[in-house]
Amino acid sequence: MSWLEDELTEQPHALARLIERQQGTARRVAELLARDDVKYVLIASRGSSSNAARYAQYLLGRAHRVPVMFATPSLYTIYEQPPRLDGAAVIGISQSGASPDVASVLAEARRQKRPTIAITNNILSPLARTADEVLVLEAGDEKAVAATKTYMNSIGAVALVFAAADGPVAESELAQMPEILERQIALSRESAPLLDEYSDAIGATIVGRGVNYGTAFEVALKIRELSGLVVEAYSPADLMHGPIAAIQPRWPVVLVAPSGPARPSVEDVVLPLRERGARLLAVSDVGAVLRRAQTRLPLVPHVPEWLSPLTAVIPGQLTALRLARLRGLDIDAPVGLRKVTLTR
Amino acid sequence: MSWLEDELTEQPHALARLIERQQGTARRVAELLARDDVKYVLIASRGSSSNAARYAQYLLGRAHRVPVMFATPSLYTIYEQPPRLDGAAVIGISQSGASPDVASVLAEARRQKRPTIAITNNILSPLARTADEVLVLEAGDEKAVAATKTYMNSIGAVALVFAAADGPVAESELAQMPEILERQIALSRESAPLLDEYSDAIGATIVGRGVNYGTAFEVALKIRELSGLVVEAYSPADLMHGPIAAIQPRWPVVLVAPSGPARPSVEDVVLPLRERGARLLAVSDVGAVLRRAQTRLPLVPHVPEWLSPLTAVIPGQLTALRLARLRGLDIDAPVGLRKVTLTR
Repeated sequence: MSWLEDELTEQPHALARLIERQQGTARRVAELLARDDVKYVLIASRGSSSNAARYAQYLLGRAHRVPVMFATPSLYTIYEQPPRLDGAAVIGISQSGASPDVASVLAEARRQKRPTIAITNNILSPLARTADEVLVLEAGDEKAVAATKTYMNSIGAVALVFAAADGPVAESELAQMPEILERQIALSRESAPLLDEYSDAIGATIVGRGVNYGTAFEVALKIRELSGLVVEAYSPADLMHGPIAAIQPRWPVVLVAPSGPARPSVEDVVLPLRERGARLLAVSDVGAVLRRAQTRLPLVPHVPEWLSPLTAVIPGQLTALRLARLRGLDIDAPVGLRKVTLTR
Repeated sequence: MSWLEDELTEQPHALARLIERQQGTARRVAELLARDDVKYVLIASRGSSSNAARYAQYLLGRAHRVPVMFATPSLYTIYEQPPRLDGAAVIGISQSGASPDVASVLAEARRQKRPTIAITNNILSPLARTADEVLVLEAGDEKAVAATKTYMNSIGAVALVFAAADGPVAESELAQMPEILERQIALSRESAPLLDEYSDAIGATIVGRGVNYGTAFEVALKIRELSGLVVEAYSPADLMHGPIAAIQPRWPVVLVAPSGPARPSVEDVVLPLRERGARLLAVSDVGAVLRRAQTRLPLVPHVPEWLSPLTAVIPGQLTALRLARLRGLDIDAPVGLRKVTLTR
């Protein structure tokens, strides 16, 4: 076994631990975001944490009905012209809490006396020390370079804040997720051998929208990191505005389309992609969606749409693992990557 | 000649027309963005217009010192849970002004009585009709599917608003750009044959940061649309946080690195990319940067950094044209693309 497989398998337990230990913090964070003087939420992040930020953009946007947006770290670091942050609540997401660019956005927010929140696995990190509230990921030590359980718990932390704002129904829906993740891992392990027919692929495109826009990016990143394939992510709307031109015959396209309001938008790309001869894979709990694809990566059914990113990433993680194994690569330490990346 | 070549060549004239005709509107837009009740700017866009929005994110952020961020159209359309927009000024960028998702963000802002601005080539479009101020692109009719002069004038419009806020020095710097674009087109035409050694490429990665982050995305999109190659864009910081894993030996990487504060950050990736055996191309006015690359795509020197995206996109446009010609493709109407894309 690799560390990565261990950590992937630990995800249900890691999520259960997060839910158990961080509910109080999540409620304080939700109260802070609900303050009258918070007009928008600004998130700083890199890598997998940016994909958790994309989930937050939709979920916290819906919970608090304020725009949730990404910071541009270079304005704080390279250009040294940070914006005025009146009206902002600022969240930094970083498993290591070490990247200087992410910490510098929170430090500036603090200087401007705006509320700051760190979502990190390291309570002693520079990021945690800068924040008013620290939502600890509780993922335990993650040894593989590619994030699995820290990603799961980053989106779990976002879901916990949403549930704290939304109320007891959402909280009980989230409480069921560790058990559902167990079933999803088992289900996706069964379908992983289907990926072997893609051993000739040089890349792939992942399509998702709404709450699963971030899932598409995380699946793309995971396959890239582990297998070295050229994998990219798009919303269906962005793909149609030009980038679809690069989809050649036999290019694999993964549609992340669980049941819910975003599903029809993702299905809008099926026909144009078929006309281009793409090979379609579907990640869905909907039979009709799965049947439109050559390769079916089923999801456990009856998961509320807002929690579907927690299950939908798992077939992607197992796909990444499978493709890396087919290529005989080092799963835990992909060439040239480090666990903690420091960027300005 | 193709329409695309005509339109690419027309860019200096189109920009001159924009500057001449829209200065008054740009000043009103700058005043509107400077209002005390504007705490942040929200931009809705798709395709090439999103790349102009990336430029606006840095430039208007620096002019007005407020965060400039992207809307999430699906919250307005698919989820029907638009956020409260207190404190927002909302900009829609769309050459056609027709995409329903972009127009719906502006319509919601208007319902909430927030100031709205359209940047569009079509004054009769749904987007223009929804906005308080309409900054017209003045690009004339664009017939090729891939945007060239409408992109140039979209970033030109952003620069015009910046100059109106910044003052006469910036305005006179911008006024010199049409003449500089003429020289840049001539210079980049000379270096275009160097691209022939990439006729075997299946894709490429474009790297840029700060004001040229959007340039990297626009160059990637242009090559994708015209040549069908798998081309992607990253900031150097994002590339280092995982995606660099997919850079294989001989994979072409274009560094967009004009002189200015963002240049050292882009150069941070040179050594890791060399270790991976990537083929490096540099778009720069700096000899030291050009010399680090196998393929040198020089920029006209002495352009202020904030205006460098106007010149830096041109070698990218000519690269896209060259690669498409090498592949014998229809330059004006890439397979499966339409000039006006309607997405929800």
